[in-house]
Amino acid sequence: MIGHSLSAADELLDVWPTLRRSQRVDRFEALPRDQMDNFFLALDARSQSRLLLSLPEGERRLYMRLLAPDDAADVIQESKAKRQYLLDLLDDRTMNEVKALLAFREDSAGGLMNPRFARLRPDASIDEAISYLRQQLGHVETIHYAYVLDENQTLLGVVALKDLVSADPTKTVKAVMTTKIYSVSPNTDQNEIAHLLTEHGIKAVPVVDENRHMQGIVMADDLIDVLREEDTEDIQKMGGMEALDGPYLETGFLAMIRKRAGWLVILFLGEMLTASAMTHFEEEIQRAVVLALFIPLLISSGGNSGSQATSLIIRALALREVRLRNWWRVIRREVAAGVALGAILGFVGLVRILIWQSLWHTYGEHYVLVALTIACSLVGVVTFGTLAGSMLPFILRRCGLDPASASAPFVATLVDVTGLIIYFTIAKVILAGTLL
Amino acid sequence: MIGHSLSAADELLDVWPTLRRSQRVDRFEALPRDQMDNFFLALDARSQSRLLLSLPEGERRLYMRLLAPDDAADVIQESKAKRQYLLDLLDDRTMNEVKALLAFREDSAGGLMNPRFARLRPDASIDEAISYLRQQLGHVETIHYAYVLDENQTLLGVVALKDLVSADPTKTVKAVMTTKIYSVSPNTDQNEIAHLLTEHGIKAVPVVDENRHMQGIVMADDLIDVLREEDTEDIQKMGGMEALDGPYLETGFLAMIRKRAGWLVILFLGEMLTASAMTHFEEEIQRAVVLALFIPLLISSGGNSGSQATSLIIRALALREVRLRNWWRVIRREVAAGVALGAILGFVGLVRILIWQSLWHTYGEHYVLVALTIACSLVGVVTFGTLAGSMLPFILRRCGLDPASASAPFVATLVDVTGLIIYFTIAKVILAGTLL
Repeated sequence: MIGHSLSAADELLDVWPTLRRSQRVDRFEALPRDQMDNFFLALDARSQSRLLLSLPEGERRLYMRLLAPDDAADVIQESKAKRQYLLDLLDDRTMNEVKALLAFREDSAGGLMNPRFARLRPDASIDEAISYLRQQLGHVETIHYAYVLDENQTLLGVVALKDLVSADPTKTVKAVMTTKIYSVSPNTDQNEIAHLLTEHGIKAVPVVDENRHMQGIVMADDLIDVLREEDTEDIQKMGGMEALDGPYLETGFLAMIRKRAGWLVILFLGEMLTASAMTHFEEEIQRAVVLALFIPLLISSGGNSGSQATSLIIRALALREVRLRNWWRVIRREVAAGVALGAILGFVGLVRILIWQSLWHTYGEHYVLVALTIACSLVGVVTFGTLAGSMLPFILRRCGLDPASASAPFVATLVDVTGLIIYFTIAKVILAGTLL
Repeated sequence: MIGHSLSAADELLDVWPTLRRSQRVDRFEALPRDQMDNFFLALDARSQSRLLLSLPEGERRLYMRLLAPDDAADVIQESKAKRQYLLDLLDDRTMNEVKALLAFREDSAGGLMNPRFARLRPDASIDEAISYLRQQLGHVETIHYAYVLDENQTLLGVVALKDLVSADPTKTVKAVMTTKIYSVSPNTDQNEIAHLLTEHGIKAVPVVDENRHMQGIVMADDLIDVLREEDTEDIQKMGGMEALDGPYLETGFLAMIRKRAGWLVILFLGEMLTASAMTHFEEEIQRAVVLALFIPLLISSGGNSGSQATSLIIRALALREVRLRNWWRVIRREVAAGVALGAILGFVGLVRILIWQSLWHTYGEHYVLVALTIACSLVGVVTFGTLAGSMLPFILRRCGLDPASASAPFVATLVDVTGLIIYFTIAKVILAGTLL
């Protein structure tokens, strides 16, 4: 809103996510009557569902019937326990449409589609088609595209309104429609649809069942919400936790602890292997405590380089810039990157130790060998971290798991044990006969 | 594509991102003539730009003129060095529109908008308006919404096609238009626009300058590409690196090393503080090597809990579920979560040490005190990690920086030094008089 004063509804929308549940109904009921319906429609499905069930019984049907079938289905998905109650609030036709939508997964074409699309018969004349589209306007999601169906609702083709308008009016719809069309099945995943729409530059895609019977359409703007939700889940998984189901401030404390503790305990159990590994090198540490000083530096460098590689590959896989079959190209590239990055860090580490030594004599008489140990270990640890970090998303995808589960903490834990082993092995070789 | 055979163009689109540049022109030129224009239109701007400049000179104008003004501007943005050359390939009218678009940032409303929208005069009759909209069809992005402008191109209102069709035909456009409209300025950021469209459930938003002169419209489907790109940048930043400008396999090796090495070296320099901190505790390690065994376990637990908190808050800020002013609520929540998570990990750690001790007598005679030290330190380290991880995105946002720069590696580095200090301080207190 630029150059306008905010309405009460706009102001409320703005603060809505940060309000406590108890405040919401009161603030909603305090809105001017003529802003309440638009306000309700502007909310996301989760908030609509919660608000609806907090309203007095007599007002619920009013708001439930405001919703288009796909939106009503979303609201019901958010309160599964009240499914039948909410369905009963709808009129019969919408109820049947909503029931059909509820049969599909929320993030699939079937769950996202709008069953109200513009439809035409193949043998209609161009003029009939245009006037029929005008009648459908208001009842369908878009009239820019009309879908041509036979009497069994089988999808025959698609025609753009602009092609109808510029066509010779004596022709039939059949003569101007396109039969080469992209379509998806009700089970197609939202990401697949997003990919289809953006890659082929189309604004809507028809959903057909196995017999090519038309079920509905999914449009680009139906996808924005779900894509953002999906990206949020990815980011939370990559942060090393199970994805929350809802907004941060609305998630209950115990539910949140459960989602976070699970992964944290798994990572902790994994990280315990470092304590076991270190037990094997207890003697070396006893003899050369200087080695212990660099443990955090070394293992974190492995973890950091690994988490860079992981997030690069997760995203490249999600956007299909990289396919599973490209794994060998990725390995070669990442090993080269790992060696280069390790050499850079090794050089920085070497210089740091030499400077500190000349200033404070921190590292004893064998400081050159210590510096060399650190530098060589860094090359090894960073190369291994990069390689492990880049391959982990491939392995997860290959096993049918979500590559985004390869979180930075997961990679770091994986790399820590190996990092310690690489470090102490190199130390044994370089420092044999002097410190060790 | 379900139930269709893939065309040559579809197949090529599918493998395009994984092809080497040298292969692309050949594969493109080998497409059937009638599929080449659709194929070109389906590519993203970066690929269009590269392909265009690889084509023989004589073919370039053909493809450049295929593009709508906003798409042509995107292509030119991708090859800034060839800006004038590419502009000269366009016809005069489009060139002027594209030049105007190029004056704006790519990720702002001005850079995203399409200057070809449906426009109406306020004093037109409903019938005139409908037939005028039909004429505009094909030249504008959508006719579902028409913008009502005065003779100075000032935005007066908006009218939906469906409202025109159902209106009394003797009225004028002015009588049925809505004057309460959301609009954005050319400098409005893409995220702001996405927020407006999704929060208010609208499909298109007009872009107006400071005098409310209409400049163009941004539609939901224009945003999908940029939002995904933005999410990719966020994820790469959160992985602890500078965002790549393009797809993984297309980014040059040296460019990629530069983007990754920068942050890696900064993190490395930060992590060096752990070596300095450890130097202070060298004596304690010498006396009780058993303390060194748990260093990786402890600091990684702090880092992991911190990275969970960070990714939660980054995303909640991006989706506006949490505002800057909510910082105090977030602190209370995260401290409580940190104590709870720390207690869970502390308990697991305690049990682990007691079991190992009873099996292998790994931890010496004071194993109970050692176990207690680890458990108490875990509560401290995890609570601090959670608090630091959740506040970092707030601090970055407050300083005008991107909260997504608060990567898991960044948080881990921040938490490692503090984690060591907490650990050794607690150890000194609990183990004084026995091991230390």
